[in-house]
Amino acid sequence: MQRFRKVVILGTGLIGGSLGLAIKAKRLAGEIVGLSRHKKNALLAKKIGAIDRVTFSLSEVHSADLVILAAPVNTIISLGKSIAGLLSKDCIVIDVGSTKAAVVKSLSGILTNFVGCHPLAGLEKRGVVYARKGIFHHSVCIITPEERTQPKALSRVRSFWNKLGVKTILVSPEEHDKALAFTSHLPHAVAFSLNLSVPEKYLRFCAGGFKDTTRIASSGAELWAQIFLSNRVHLLQALASFEGNLAALKSAVRNKDQNALAEILVKSNKKEKYSR
Amino acid sequence: MQRFRKVVILGTGLIGGSLGLAIKAKRLAGEIVGLSRHKKNALLAKKIGAIDRVTFSLSEVHSADLVILAAPVNTIISLGKSIAGLLSKDCIVIDVGSTKAAVVKSLSGILTNFVGCHPLAGLEKRGVVYARKGIFHHSVCIITPEERTQPKALSRVRSFWNKLGVKTILVSPEEHDKALAFTSHLPHAVAFSLNLSVPEKYLRFCAGGFKDTTRIASSGAELWAQIFLSNRVHLLQALASFEGNLAALKSAVRNKDQNALAEILVKSNKKEKYSR
Repeated sequence: MQRFRKVVILGTGLIGGSLGLAIKAKRLAGEIVGLSRHKKNALLAKKIGAIDRVTFSLSEVHSADLVILAAPVNTIISLGKSIAGLLSKDCIVIDVGSTKAAVVKSLSGILTNFVGCHPLAGLEKRGVVYARKGIFHHSVCIITPEERTQPKALSRVRSFWNKLGVKTILVSPEEHDKALAFTSHLPHAVAFSLNLSVPEKYLRFCAGGFKDTTRIASSGAELWAQIFLSNRVHLLQALASFEGNLAALKSAVRNKDQNALAEILVKSNKKEKYSR
Repeated sequence: MQRFRKVVILGTGLIGGSLGLAIKAKRLAGEIVGLSRHKKNALLAKKIGAIDRVTFSLSEVHSADLVILAAPVNTIISLGKSIAGLLSKDCIVIDVGSTKAAVVKSLSGILTNFVGCHPLAGLEKRGVVYARKGIFHHSVCIITPEERTQPKALSRVRSFWNKLGVKTILVSPEEHDKALAFTSHLPHAVAFSLNLSVPEKYLRFCAGGFKDTTRIASSGAELWAQIFLSNRVHLLQALASFEGNLAALKSAVRNKDQNALAEILVKSNKKEKYSR
């Protein structure tokens, strides 16, 4: 893959910072410049070597050949709009947002070489302080091209992720949002609710099962409120499916129906599992 | 702690086998004998060194000074009843069941030195093939004495767990079941349901969040059907609490109420976390 001359990361948090570290480790850029709405984050990103230089001005993107939008979904959209008039003709822009239909719809028309991306490499932690290049190791990035996506930009973006050791999957923005409603947004909604349900006086009785099921309840509130709302319809469908399954289990418990209950649990046991 | 002469483990599965390994490592018993309803399990337990000898007869408990009932809740109760007439006067009996009120109520009256225990050291795996002494490392065992519990037996059982490196917490059987309904049984019910809710075609879009929230959905179906039903009333209360929290989140999503949604997520973020 042809190296990028200058990469600008807008949003030097956990993902933006980790991308900076990974790009540097693989020597995929001549220079990496970072911007954050929190000055402290950008300075810390520089300190840990995730970026070469801090900037406080969006006009920095003018001379970039890759811009990475690494912020909550709504901010990605407003940042994309802000830089639309500032880019050079060939500059590629990618985002790393957790929902894709709204982002791609908003930005594909105004950013010539925009390619929507969603690296499945988040953590429940926030901030560049947790950034590390290893979070992309053996991970998957979903890329969501649509009719306006430039084939050349798409091809270069795929190579970019592959060079970082990331497997890429291509689907439409709509299919992405439908799938992630079930595989990511639903589990987050469930974990947030589960964590709220346990009386604090009982925390000393918790063990590994509780810890694992509620790990992602530490995920950023602002970030996840935006994700839930930007994928509202599909999330409501996923929630309905979950509620149906939980109601069936509950009904078997209420009716002391051991056979029905065991059948539900066996079905869940037997279901093909995700493993990577 | 005074060493046990002969320990009989009734149920050489994951927990029974791991206990055998841990007891051996700490040299807390002269001899460990194991019984399983599946001959293969008992033979494998012997092979990996979790027990010294396989038995196929409950009468083996006659000469034991510690009997460990390590089976699903209903089996613990029937095993306890079966051995009641076979024990020597001073033999201590403990169980490792996941609910305590039903077990203690059934066995305290008929087994003189019975002490109900629940080591919080399970795994989503089943069978002695996954047994290892390390699962008790830094773990907690809840002990549930009631008025009939013999102080001497209780004291010896506490020492036993402590020698294995396990911290002990003493509460009543009822308080145990109330707490565990929230901290263990509810998360399991949620994980089983969540795993069922994700269409298989979307599994390739899963990442760490989904994996962690559904890990315990691999837990044994028979075991968990018994746990759910033996703690039915408290589990239904915990489910109602969870459903209320999930409904509030869902309502905020449906109403596009970003403030209400963010408030819920922040509250979940801020909640004191379990950590061990």
